[in-house]
Amino acid sequence: MNSVIEDNKAADIAAVMTSIGEKAREACRDNAGSADGARDRALECAADSLERAAPEILAANEQDVRLARDKSLSPAMLDRLMLDSKRIDAMARGLREVAARPDPLGAVLAEWERPNGLNIQRVSVPLGVIGIVYESRPNVTADAAALCIKSGNAVILRGGSESFHSSQAIHRAIVEGLGAAGLSADTVQLVPTRDRDAVGFLLREMSAYVDVIVPRGGRSLIERVQQDARVPVIGHLEGLCHVYLHDDANTQMAVDIVVNAKMRRTGICGAAETLLVHRQAASRLLPPVVDALTALGCEVRGDEQVQDTVAGVRAADESDWRTEYLDAILSVRCVDGLDAAAEHIERYGSGHTECIVTPDADVAGEFFRKVDSAILLHNASTQFADGGEFGMGAEIGIATGRIHARGPVGAEQLTSYKYLVRGSGQVRQA
Amino acid sequence: MNSVIEDNKAADIAAVMTSIGEKAREACRDNAGSADGARDRALECAADSLERAAPEILAANEQDVRLARDKSLSPAMLDRLMLDSKRIDAMARGLREVAARPDPLGAVLAEWERPNGLNIQRVSVPLGVIGIVYESRPNVTADAAALCIKSGNAVILRGGSESFHSSQAIHRAIVEGLGAAGLSADTVQLVPTRDRDAVGFLLREMSAYVDVIVPRGGRSLIERVQQDARVPVIGHLEGLCHVYLHDDANTQMAVDIVVNAKMRRTGICGAAETLLVHRQAASRLLPPVVDALTALGCEVRGDEQVQDTVAGVRAADESDWRTEYLDAILSVRCVDGLDAAAEHIERYGSGHTECIVTPDADVAGEFFRKVDSAILLHNASTQFADGGEFGMGAEIGIATGRIHARGPVGAEQLTSYKYLVRGSGQVRQA
Repeated sequence: MNSVIEDNKAADIAAVMTSIGEKAREACRDNAGSADGARDRALECAADSLERAAPEILAANEQDVRLARDKSLSPAMLDRLMLDSKRIDAMARGLREVAARPDPLGAVLAEWERPNGLNIQRVSVPLGVIGIVYESRPNVTADAAALCIKSGNAVILRGGSESFHSSQAIHRAIVEGLGAAGLSADTVQLVPTRDRDAVGFLLREMSAYVDVIVPRGGRSLIERVQQDARVPVIGHLEGLCHVYLHDDANTQMAVDIVVNAKMRRTGICGAAETLLVHRQAASRLLPPVVDALTALGCEVRGDEQVQDTVAGVRAADESDWRTEYLDAILSVRCVDGLDAAAEHIERYGSGHTECIVTPDADVAGEFFRKVDSAILLHNASTQFADGGEFGMGAEIGIATGRIHARGPVGAEQLTSYKYLVRGSGQVRQA
Repeated sequence: MNSVIEDNKAADIAAVMTSIGEKAREACRDNAGSADGARDRALECAADSLERAAPEILAANEQDVRLARDKSLSPAMLDRLMLDSKRIDAMARGLREVAARPDPLGAVLAEWERPNGLNIQRVSVPLGVIGIVYESRPNVTADAAALCIKSGNAVILRGGSESFHSSQAIHRAIVEGLGAAGLSADTVQLVPTRDRDAVGFLLREMSAYVDVIVPRGGRSLIERVQQDARVPVIGHLEGLCHVYLHDDANTQMAVDIVVNAKMRRTGICGAAETLLVHRQAASRLLPPVVDALTALGCEVRGDEQVQDTVAGVRAADESDWRTEYLDAILSVRCVDGLDAAAEHIERYGSGHTECIVTPDADVAGEFFRKVDSAILLHNASTQFADGGEFGMGAEIGIATGRIHARGPVGAEQLTSYKYLVRGSGQVRQA
């Protein structure tokens, strides 16, 4: 088991992190030759271990919560940090669900034959070593480890300092599972220090060991990682998601989708933050939509036409279009039509998820072409922006970048591929 | 047309590069709405323009060659730089071949239905804005532009300073083609200065405008780009390719494949640099292989057993295993078997392309599992490591990284995707 570094000297951090990198590379290589099904067995054993270790995990979590209270963390952050037996059960269930999904490795993604008889296959393989930098939720330790084990990668986890002891206890259970299935314990390593310099070292100095960094957390974390990393980053910025109501939108469907997109859960990245309404349908659509929202306790901030159409709406300003509230607040703007909606989304959006409500499939098709976000929905709530809802299983986030993976990042997205070419002595002509 | 910046002040470079970035973003957006077939028409028109502009291009090239001679460039570099009417024809042909290939955009990469009735499609879209940094070959200006046009991207080209005038003349012809097809002239922009600070600015300061950087050139260029870039890089390191002869390899096939892999063309990244031979078959395989190579003028450098087996072989040292000769030199080592071969390749290889020669499909399967390179071949020459030979058309290089694209990077690999979700009013349950 890793011991905590109490001494923060740079040389110590470099030595510890380099050793973690070397062990991760080795684990990656060792696991490539592991028996069929070993990764799934490791996940199931880790789930058993998690359940057995519940008392230790809860005790470690209590320690974290006590320290967090001393530091006067906000109630929302305390809630994210806190574990109970239900949350531990959910983690174990998550591990078993990942185990039950199809193997993302060894899939023949494409296959073709060349005129000279060469057979070419593109086959999925692990990405290699993944660094995951995350914030306070300790369950990410289990979730992220599960996806990396499933996809045959080795992972270096660096959790938030608030969940330090909880993550260590969860990590111990996962390592037990790896051992039970004959996989290297170094497949999942947890950075054993809270020193922030360790993150810097991971991002900047470990390109020889780490193939990709996945940050999971708020905007400032993601931005720091994207700024500092010397290895590729699969990141997601915030989810500044839009719903656009076209002039022919069905009123009831508009109400249902907007209310769900905003209010089902306000704190997730797929929650809608801005509603765009076709100017010519504002008087029909806005009153019932705003009424339904305010009845549920949602604050509505609107432009002039919105304020003129519905009484009691507070004025939205420029900054509202740029804000991911993650709260029961919705900004509402009237637009001249689909093009203006697309322009607003391009200007203010984060490329995450947008929805159009219209009965017209051609109009939806135009929206799909003109708006460039990871997920576009026609007549469905933005809260479906979720790997599980997509049928892809657990995910580590919704990528808003354009490189490698876009949208939900599950085990399948944590793979690369290689080409296997089978011949019978072919040589290349001049 | 862009004018040359004679004044190298940082502020000028920042202003010019920022304007290029903004225009590229805009071109990207404008082209998204362009008519079907416009991209292919642009490529065909650009091919016509290239042919028509041959005299201007040759004159510009003469200017570059004269300056290069003054700077005493090596004959190999002069050869890369020099254009003649045959090379211009080849560029035009290349553009037409890219035009004739299937559209990489709008392809439904996957589609499925959810139990709640949501239909989900993963559809290919452009990556966005691509920065390409390359060295002296002026034809890269045409090749790279063609792949980016085909894949709906905007591209910022930064060629080698030696080919500055040639690239400008080629670029003018391509811009003509874009105009003739109604596409934005800013789809393909050429950095209008030879100042190296412009590359630094492109790599470090333009993450708001550039989605990915593709370096194309020698090791020092690639390393500089990977070190400095603040945007994702699709790079290829060198091609330190291996051929491994298993103990049951057919002698004639071994000779044919090794000779072709090394000698067909020694200067390409798919050329073999190291031969690994099963120790137990060394006395059977090495004499005919080495004889065939030396007969073609190839220098062979071997370990002790190789020297003991074949007379006149120079000793290889540690540095030979690490060297991409790109020349008629081959390092040869005897190994204990497949595992030792795989270990050597992992230690010294660049993850590009490796070949095994064996009649045994199971042994080849083990090699495919244990060796982790972009391209693995069974009984075929490493010189097939090429987008054209794979049937993928033109490519911009062979990616040896693991993120996004691996192996040949053609138009298809210069795309991203988005999810289109079609519903009928679905909202997400609690």
